[in-house]
Amino acid sequence: MADHNIKPVPLDKAYRLLNHGPTVLVSARHAGVDNVMAAAWCCPLDFDPPKLTVVIDRNTYTRRLVEASGKFVVQVPTARQAEVVYQLGSRSKISEPDKLIDIGVVMTSLGGFELPMVRDCSAWLVCEVLPNFENEDRYDLFIGQVVAAWADRRVFSDGRWHFETADAGWRSLHHVAGGNFYAIGARVCASDNE
Amino acid sequence: MADHNIKPVPLDKAYRLLNHGPTVLVSARHAGVDNVMAAAWCCPLDFDPPKLTVVIDRNTYTRRLVEASGKFVVQVPTARQAEVVYQLGSRSKISEPDKLIDIGVVMTSLGGFELPMVRDCSAWLVCEVLPNFENEDRYDLFIGQVVAAWADRRVFSDGRWHFETADAGWRSLHHVAGGNFYAIGARVCASDNE
Repeated sequence: MADHNIKPVPLDKAYRLLNHGPTVLVSARHAGVDNVMAAAWCCPLDFDPPKLTVVIDRNTYTRRLVEASGKFVVQVPTARQAEVVYQLGSRSKISEPDKLIDIGVVMTSLGGFELPMVRDCSAWLVCEVLPNFENEDRYDLFIGQVVAAWADRRVFSDGRWHFETADAGWRSLHHVAGGNFYAIGARVCASDNE
Repeated sequence: MADHNIKPVPLDKAYRLLNHGPTVLVSARHAGVDNVMAAAWCCPLDFDPPKLTVVIDRNTYTRRLVEASGKFVVQVPTARQAEVVYQLGSRSKISEPDKLIDIGVVMTSLGGFELPMVRDCSAWLVCEVLPNFENEDRYDLFIGQVVAAWADRRVFSDGRWHFETADAGWRSLHHVAGGNFYAIGARVCASDNE
């Protein structure tokens, strides 16, 4: 993707892409097959090297791709993409093999990684699974180490989000239930901060 | 606490208190000693029975209380409490034994549980640790099963948040870094939802 707005995020700042708790999209590829699902249950786990946790239900097609490849991408979708996020989260490639085409999601790639990434998101984190059978088997909980990250400089630059000055369409989505989200809102600073 | 605004949340709806990714406060008690810390890295893990994950750094005093008691409380603070959340997250009882008093946080209790809870939050979840030595030792990651939950009906009722109609002071906080938060914002619905 030759988009001059997309810039690498230093790995020691990658946790900030997820620190405010957005709903994310999880994508993966194995043997030439791609899929994308939505996940509200994704959370930073460590700063540097950055790690994260994500719950990937055993009944998803994406789970098969992650288990087979040992890799996945976490991306932060925007308020503009609410409908796509909802569709990606409520429809399964298991029953609908052409899910991605039918939903009309546009894929891209970054950094030469052979992994599917959703275009027009605000941030992307490439993860390698740190295998833990008990977590995966008992809780559907996966731990990923972030090996590369990017963000769109129109909403994230200099290691921080700029939701308060970017167009409202860039705001992150925070899923409640059943296709109902909140967008992230106003900046709030503790008193001894700027 | 005899506050008629605080109502139990059915356990199968408790995940919704955290689904939108708020920064939380984690409190615990052991042998008559209480503490509270802030945690941005807390996430639902399962629906029913509800479980959650939370990262509790090994250098925190709260970690000692959680390990000794096997219990903790996750509470959702409000925009009004941003300063208290920042102070609870940046000061340690290890170096400042009277941390809670000095910060001026007001404690309460709910449901007869012998656990410290922070007053004026919007929701509280009582958790029992599901022990997992590898997660705790390697990643500072704790898994809790939620055994009771409450919310303030002025902002959460009928199993959902009402940020869009409640006073703005009730909005959840989403920490970015260094005492800078975003409050949760506007409601966004996918097209085939109300």
